[in-house]
Amino acid sequence: MKRLLVANRGEIAVRIIRAARDLGISTVAVHSTADAGARHVRLADAAVEIGPPPAGKSYLVADAIVEAARSAGADAVHPGYGFLSERAGFAAAVADAGLAFVGPDADVIDRMGDKVRARQVAAAAGVPTVPGTPGGVEDVEAAVAAAAEVGYPVMLKAAAGGGGRGIRVVEDEAGLRTAFPAASREAASAFGDGRMYLERFVRRARHVEVQVLGDGTDAVHLFERECSLQRRRQKVVEEALAPGIDSRVRDGMTAAAVRLAREVGYRSAGTVEFLVDDETHEFFFIEMNTRIQVEHPTTELVTGIDLVTAQLRIAAGDPLPHAQPDIAVRGWAIEFRVNAEDPARGFLPSPGKVGRVELPAGPWVRVDTWLEPDVTVPPFYDSLLAKVVVWGEDRESAIRRSRRAFAEFAVEGVPTTAGLHTEILDQPWFAAGEFHTGTLEQWLSDREEATA
Amino acid sequence: MKRLLVANRGEIAVRIIRAARDLGISTVAVHSTADAGARHVRLADAAVEIGPPPAGKSYLVADAIVEAARSAGADAVHPGYGFLSERAGFAAAVADAGLAFVGPDADVIDRMGDKVRARQVAAAAGVPTVPGTPGGVEDVEAAVAAAAEVGYPVMLKAAAGGGGRGIRVVEDEAGLRTAFPAASREAASAFGDGRMYLERFVRRARHVEVQVLGDGTDAVHLFERECSLQRRRQKVVEEALAPGIDSRVRDGMTAAAVRLAREVGYRSAGTVEFLVDDETHEFFFIEMNTRIQVEHPTTELVTGIDLVTAQLRIAAGDPLPHAQPDIAVRGWAIEFRVNAEDPARGFLPSPGKVGRVELPAGPWVRVDTWLEPDVTVPPFYDSLLAKVVVWGEDRESAIRRSRRAFAEFAVEGVPTTAGLHTEILDQPWFAAGEFHTGTLEQWLSDREEATA
Repeated sequence: MKRLLVANRGEIAVRIIRAARDLGISTVAVHSTADAGARHVRLADAAVEIGPPPAGKSYLVADAIVEAARSAGADAVHPGYGFLSERAGFAAAVADAGLAFVGPDADVIDRMGDKVRARQVAAAAGVPTVPGTPGGVEDVEAAVAAAAEVGYPVMLKAAAGGGGRGIRVVEDEAGLRTAFPAASREAASAFGDGRMYLERFVRRARHVEVQVLGDGTDAVHLFERECSLQRRRQKVVEEALAPGIDSRVRDGMTAAAVRLAREVGYRSAGTVEFLVDDETHEFFFIEMNTRIQVEHPTTELVTGIDLVTAQLRIAAGDPLPHAQPDIAVRGWAIEFRVNAEDPARGFLPSPGKVGRVELPAGPWVRVDTWLEPDVTVPPFYDSLLAKVVVWGEDRESAIRRSRRAFAEFAVEGVPTTAGLHTEILDQPWFAAGEFHTGTLEQWLSDREEATA
Repeated sequence: MKRLLVANRGEIAVRIIRAARDLGISTVAVHSTADAGARHVRLADAAVEIGPPPAGKSYLVADAIVEAARSAGADAVHPGYGFLSERAGFAAAVADAGLAFVGPDADVIDRMGDKVRARQVAAAAGVPTVPGTPGGVEDVEAAVAAAAEVGYPVMLKAAAGGGGRGIRVVEDEAGLRTAFPAASREAASAFGDGRMYLERFVRRARHVEVQVLGDGTDAVHLFERECSLQRRRQKVVEEALAPGIDSRVRDGMTAAAVRLAREVGYRSAGTVEFLVDDETHEFFFIEMNTRIQVEHPTTELVTGIDLVTAQLRIAAGDPLPHAQPDIAVRGWAIEFRVNAEDPARGFLPSPGKVGRVELPAGPWVRVDTWLEPDVTVPPFYDSLLAKVVVWGEDRESAIRRSRRAFAEFAVEGVPTTAGLHTEILDQPWFAAGEFHTGTLEQWLSDREEATA
């Protein structure tokens, strides 16, 4: 691998360019007309404009990106996360053009991207799944029959979906009859596939995910991340490791993730997401993300393993860079996503012109960002401005250090969620590590009432 | 410890403030009139102006600093490095004022600060020293007699000196007769003590130092740093660990450093400097620095131990935070000192107005700095602008990542030594780890001739 096209924008494009540099690989950025002056464009060795915003006319146009790679002399393409990263067709098009796709093979993306097939793979690998329908359910009557077997409350998900879209929790049959048609229509329009599947809804659930690395032949895990602090199913704060997990659960979950990766001959970095029942400590497979994850730096900081360079090496044909016994955890890491959103206005996206920027720095504070003074946050893309990732010898010192980091953080011009993190850091449930997927939204709504 | 006065400026003041924050300790900055708007002043919770530049009228005025601590309600004082950090009288004055001094006791500073007494302590602890005079030599005839015994070439050092001042290498008796009077006069004027000592000069020597931590009762080491790349005895690039050292030498040196620290009941972070003969692999004690060292971040990055918070904890009365078996090394770290000096003009200091600043960031790149866009580099102080500290899984990947870091580094307005580091990174002797204390100056002089 000599020249890598980075098929993304924002902080992850910057992150990937740095990883390529760390290996002496030259880089080609792609960008929309709105991103012509963006940091990833200036950092890369070359850049190709691929169309106007929104993403559908540029970052999501597979042909334009493959053509850009060809014209710029790239021999590999890294998709980042979001955009085309989990489109099997894109991976196939890249491979067909004779370029290395930095990610798993198209057929693995395809199998894991379909929730129903992914559950079947999990079952074959002996990985527990949430009690639910074995396959996609096509109409409301079939859904009602299935729910009676699974038991309420049930969660309704698009069989072809992802990213939290189209998910609904229903408490009883009446709720299901109301919710199903709309959810199925939404799924059909978003994914071209209206099938839904149903699974048991765990009320106090933790979202814990295991990082894996595979080279097509073998696979290893890099322990887990705790990602329960979510708002509208978008992660807000993540950590490595998970504070509420005992070693028996950890061992079971990491072994299951490796079995799953081996089952599909997984190549590249991937994440196996689990739901952990906070009461019974059972864990259930949710889905596998066949790409680098936003929260990957937490794993990097505790293991000392660079996941993006590992991806690049594996895509270049190298075997796994580390054997399982050599992968160990030191300390604790927490990532805070700072978004251009206004917490005082219902987290309304807040694009606009940025003024002064002060980013935290110094010992054990890493900031992955595309943010610079005087940039414009475009309204077309996700609102992630920066990831503040903090390492400490233990969770308590990571939390204290995170307070220091946010005391140094300042962005003028656009409202951000930075202040929210300062508040979260002071919550007793956060300090204690006692939270589940509903905690953050409950706290936000309590907080809103208190100030109303 | 509730409130810490930081008796320093520049990057180390910023570093110490961050460490205090990491422990929830509030901070008081001191500053000269020239530093009123400096970063350490803005970062601290409070600030006290202590006088005009130069340092002799502010940062070196012990009384003013103790008074500032008292008036600002501080209960502890961190001296940083340089300035008052190794003045026993300052440590004593701080203690007399009822404040905790973040460093060893005054009498330990005193004993280790006097090179002759330090060698005696080393001998008592069974730590090998360079063959030399047992004590200070007062006149030229005594020096000539001593040199005949030690063997030429010999190095002439001020008994009370430090920081490389007044050091001369002489090749024979004639050279000694010329050099001694001037060196002794210089020492008398700088330190109020004209005594000199003589030791054997090792031609191909590595400068390797061992980081120790003591709590007054016990001591541990945090392995070594390689600091041979020097210009005019000022370190330019440092790394942890030392590339040219085998495990037998490492074990011997670290054990010797711990013996020395125990011998004096050392409390706080300290550095035991050794000279390693590159041919015979013998190691000899040079001196002990009784303070935090500029290059401490390299040790922090490989051990995961925060040396400054460790200092603060120990000063607050805590025992050693880590037992020796728990202190392990992961990966490799390199620090590059970026100075406001012009390599094209003989490293002439280049104070002035800074314009745009772009600092490297991202995975495993740490920058300790006081630098910000549009600041002024005052002409009164040392020229250190920033320390770029890079970690990698091994030395080779740390070097590659360092290239990435310097590709992102830009300071406009004042000439810096950043470009020099980019060149050093490409030298075969650097890649191979094959260098000694004379290598950098030799290379600089060859390079100058080549361009002349």
